[in-house]
Amino acid sequence: MNNFVFYSPTEFVFGKATEMQVGALARKHGAQKVMIVYGGGSVVRSGLLDRVKQSLQEAGVGFCEMGGVQPNPVDTKVYEGIDFCRTQQADMMLAVGGGSVIDTAKAIAAGVVYDGDFWDFYIGKAKVTKALKVGVVLTIPAAGSEGSGNTVITKVDTLQKLSLRVPEVLRPVFAVMNPELTYTLPPFQTACGIADMMVHIMERYFTNTEDVEIADRVCEGTLTAIIKEAYRVKQDPNNYGARANIMWCGTIAHNGTCGVGCEEDWASHFLEHEVSAIYNVTHGAGLTVITPAWMTFMASHNPRKIAQFANRVFGVPETEDLEEMALTGISRLKHFFRYMGLPVTFKELGIENPDIDRLVDSLHRNKGELVGNYVKLTREYSKEIYQLAL
Amino acid sequence: MNNFVFYSPTEFVFGKATEMQVGALARKHGAQKVMIVYGGGSVVRSGLLDRVKQSLQEAGVGFCEMGGVQPNPVDTKVYEGIDFCRTQQADMMLAVGGGSVIDTAKAIAAGVVYDGDFWDFYIGKAKVTKALKVGVVLTIPAAGSEGSGNTVITKVDTLQKLSLRVPEVLRPVFAVMNPELTYTLPPFQTACGIADMMVHIMERYFTNTEDVEIADRVCEGTLTAIIKEAYRVKQDPNNYGARANIMWCGTIAHNGTCGVGCEEDWASHFLEHEVSAIYNVTHGAGLTVITPAWMTFMASHNPRKIAQFANRVFGVPETEDLEEMALTGISRLKHFFRYMGLPVTFKELGIENPDIDRLVDSLHRNKGELVGNYVKLTREYSKEIYQLAL
Repeated sequence: MNNFVFYSPTEFVFGKATEMQVGALARKHGAQKVMIVYGGGSVVRSGLLDRVKQSLQEAGVGFCEMGGVQPNPVDTKVYEGIDFCRTQQADMMLAVGGGSVIDTAKAIAAGVVYDGDFWDFYIGKAKVTKALKVGVVLTIPAAGSEGSGNTVITKVDTLQKLSLRVPEVLRPVFAVMNPELTYTLPPFQTACGIADMMVHIMERYFTNTEDVEIADRVCEGTLTAIIKEAYRVKQDPNNYGARANIMWCGTIAHNGTCGVGCEEDWASHFLEHEVSAIYNVTHGAGLTVITPAWMTFMASHNPRKIAQFANRVFGVPETEDLEEMALTGISRLKHFFRYMGLPVTFKELGIENPDIDRLVDSLHRNKGELVGNYVKLTREYSKEIYQLAL
Repeated sequence: MNNFVFYSPTEFVFGKATEMQVGALARKHGAQKVMIVYGGGSVVRSGLLDRVKQSLQEAGVGFCEMGGVQPNPVDTKVYEGIDFCRTQQADMMLAVGGGSVIDTAKAIAAGVVYDGDFWDFYIGKAKVTKALKVGVVLTIPAAGSEGSGNTVITKVDTLQKLSLRVPEVLRPVFAVMNPELTYTLPPFQTACGIADMMVHIMERYFTNTEDVEIADRVCEGTLTAIIKEAYRVKQDPNNYGARANIMWCGTIAHNGTCGVGCEEDWASHFLEHEVSAIYNVTHGAGLTVITPAWMTFMASHNPRKIAQFANRVFGVPETEDLEEMALTGISRLKHFFRYMGLPVTFKELGIENPDIDRLVDSLHRNKGELVGNYVKLTREYSKEIYQLAL
């Protein structure tokens, strides 16, 4: 087990009707005026935005608002938000939405107190040392951004999709999580969120670090719970228990609970970021195409943890042929994704002829000559994995 | 799943040589002068205390020190510590030890800024609203006090052993955890710690709350990891991987990670507190006597989760006879405890003829007419459980 720091200071307030506590939470964390950030009209139509405003008013916290954040959030919206926040003199960001909204709020929170271009942070030209506090009302369990210090933004001009990780500054101070708010998510979006949280766990679980029994067991247990509840929510979208379990799994998948002491991988995410940046597909759906392809490559190059995953998560019997075990597990994983309505090939994702050379070039330009850790991917290996996803 | 708050703001710094970071951590959390609290001479003999002082000096943080905290920590030591802390004008408590030391440090931290008698907090006469910050260098993985807001103190005069839970004030701000510091623990103390953390998980796991799949899986996974690593550490006390896994399990057993959304039980702990208060036995060894007896009672009164535990943690095959499954699981649990050198009856604990009427009286005087939640224990039930432990 490697040395690690576990530090998850976010206050997670979880359960029915918890959005009515948002005003008290914002006040407790020192807000005078929050800037509400949201995406499309669903939070307006559902009445959630009104309930949030009511809660803020009751707590005596002022607010301003900016909607219109799109999936795969872009730099132009961040610039707009920084200007708006400065004009309004808001002192806390309140993200009401899923990962795209939260990531945009984090970018604004850092950018608004920085004199230069916020994109400097994402390209490594400057370091985030301070930011406005960020609070969250989560509506999509997926990205885990409510409990992480990560943010991913795409630059419109160049289609660069870059991530930034500054947990000590950008981690939300509180996150309100009412599973009922997720009843109305379209099945495809629910499924994409489930895929995203599963791969967050798998990026940590597929490691060469020895003596990580507790990390393995927590990862396997969380994956097992997600899969069981995914079947339930597919049958019954208004099942509170299923929604609640999935929502909490999405958080612990990415707040440090899973994978303590493990060298993490993240190659599947980086391979996918290129796909969603260029083809603007949903991140979760991109992952269900890329991750099984990455695992298939690993089945022949480093099967140990893929085989253990097959055995402990998908019940594949133990045999001496780890590659065979791994391939059977990958087959079951793909079957599960397909059952959830998710693509497992580029073609199913709607990309008939992906420009693999462009994807490989962009990946290694953004992430260096070697990508990931479980097996370090050369350009040749990356190309092979993209081809396995055809 | 019930509504819940998960809030674990403690900064856990885990791994080899991490005690050399304690000075920087104390400084980061604002300390000018810490009061080091410790127990017996082992932290002196091992050189740990010197390394901690060196780290504080290097960070420019002053210190004073009080040793001599005993297992099952007592109020008289807390009074001494409060006086000493006031004289020394220390502004942060630094507990170097296990649960008894940390619990004493928490009691001092709350008492030193309170005008009345600190015992008021434990008997519910006053509420803790402020306290000095507490930092920890953990040497015994067991109580989970490094990540909890709990403290248990025994009043010498009356042998009342009472617990207090104020997570928002008494939770340590940081905890340094170097598994190497646990190599020299005597096997019995290692085993008692393992038992304590297992029962912390089981108190949450044995619940009637429905739809707690993620809580179940994380609890089962953590228990499975503890048992596997316990066998390894028994064979090889200097096995870093085994020590590291056990140490982290002890923390997540009690910082809120396990049992989210569950109504918790805690009857086994309360039944045991009476035993260790009156007979001054080690808490973990008291638990391995009481908990299997409690489970045996439950096997006939409410077997569902006991049977699930038997199946998923100890591999007992599923059958329709839940009571039979439960009893087989309890038998395997007792076998495991015995293998670790722990008692599973009062007699093995060294108490030939426990005064069961006195235990029952004291339990219900301290905790009310009904104790626990999985099955609410009347005086009659409590008596039956104590008798099952003979």
